[in-house]
Amino acid sequence: MYPQSLKDLIESFKLLPGIGEKTAERLAFFLVNEDEEKTDFFASSIVNAKKNIRTCSICNSLTDKEVCDICSDKLRDNQTLCVVEDPKSIFLFEKVGSFHGKYHVLDGLISPLDGVDPDDIGIEKLIKRIKDEKFEEIIIAVKPSIEGETTALYIKKILEGMNIKVTRIASGIPIGTDIEYIDSMTLERALMDRKEIN
Amino acid sequence: MYPQSLKDLIESFKLLPGIGEKTAERLAFFLVNEDEEKTDFFASSIVNAKKNIRTCSICNSLTDKEVCDICSDKLRDNQTLCVVEDPKSIFLFEKVGSFHGKYHVLDGLISPLDGVDPDDIGIEKLIKRIKDEKFEEIIIAVKPSIEGETTALYIKKILEGMNIKVTRIASGIPIGTDIEYIDSMTLERALMDRKEIN
Repeated sequence: MYPQSLKDLIESFKLLPGIGEKTAERLAFFLVNEDEEKTDFFASSIVNAKKNIRTCSICNSLTDKEVCDICSDKLRDNQTLCVVEDPKSIFLFEKVGSFHGKYHVLDGLISPLDGVDPDDIGIEKLIKRIKDEKFEEIIIAVKPSIEGETTALYIKKILEGMNIKVTRIASGIPIGTDIEYIDSMTLERALMDRKEIN
Repeated sequence: MYPQSLKDLIESFKLLPGIGEKTAERLAFFLVNEDEEKTDFFASSIVNAKKNIRTCSICNSLTDKEVCDICSDKLRDNQTLCVVEDPKSIFLFEKVGSFHGKYHVLDGLISPLDGVDPDDIGIEKLIKRIKDEKFEEIIIAVKPSIEGETTALYIKKILEGMNIKVTRIASGIPIGTDIEYIDSMTLERALMDRKEIN
């Protein structure tokens, strides 16, 4: 029913996560009504991002260079390493701006039930890096879930006896959220991890 | 902070309606992880759709030809014309599949408050077409709103005395919807337009 090129554009949008038939149609109709300057920019952005963006050879973050800006930044604190589960987390922490150490991106989280072993998420590369670069503190900043917990404990175990502090970002009630909306596992953790008020 | 090509891709997604910073980031990160085959298809779909899709010279629908498939279809009922407010409506009616006449796309709706006059939405072209092609019934299928009502009444008035039946698609309660969720204007209309049960 749709002309072929419109059909292709709708199919393209449907490749994206969370975008179904109706939204894809809406976006495609929107785009054909835009200036050619904008549609050309869109198309070339896709091609260029795919062509230029690779993973940093040191930390696995996304970069357009061999080594990313953070890894090659001599001014950053090189005693603290923040371990995250995907490149996006790095950009989120950088937006916050209060962490000045280095990062390392795992390729997901350990999940025995899904057959994901430590080898599958690049733990070996992480451990080698921690030894080589002599970090003093490893902050595990992965999501609080069974897989996150398993991954954190595994890293902690591997580093045992090496005199390296291993920490974990806090779990608890998000700032500004009513307690009534919080699930019981989070509440339990918030209670367990309570801090003394000084 | 983001590498330039990733930043451009995020900006591209932000051009789309309903897509803010966070969703744009999510989609961009998703896309750089996809196969090059898919990203190339996406990029070329945008370029091709923009290049090939134009408005049908007869009905103003979107097409990749001079005259769209519906206008050039000799088998369609050419006594009934369905007037819609955008090309997308045509594809929606065609999906339903129960209308077999011709279509005509207005360039929006009359809106005196926004300074949109009959001339601005291409009423003249519509009226000329109705006279030339000798339609017997004009179905106004625009949204039920003040602008939709104004546009429908204007077309009705122009065609007065020409022995052409002018109808309007029904307004009322959507099938399967609880009455408690319906606004009072729709309820009023549903009551006013009640039909005898035979």
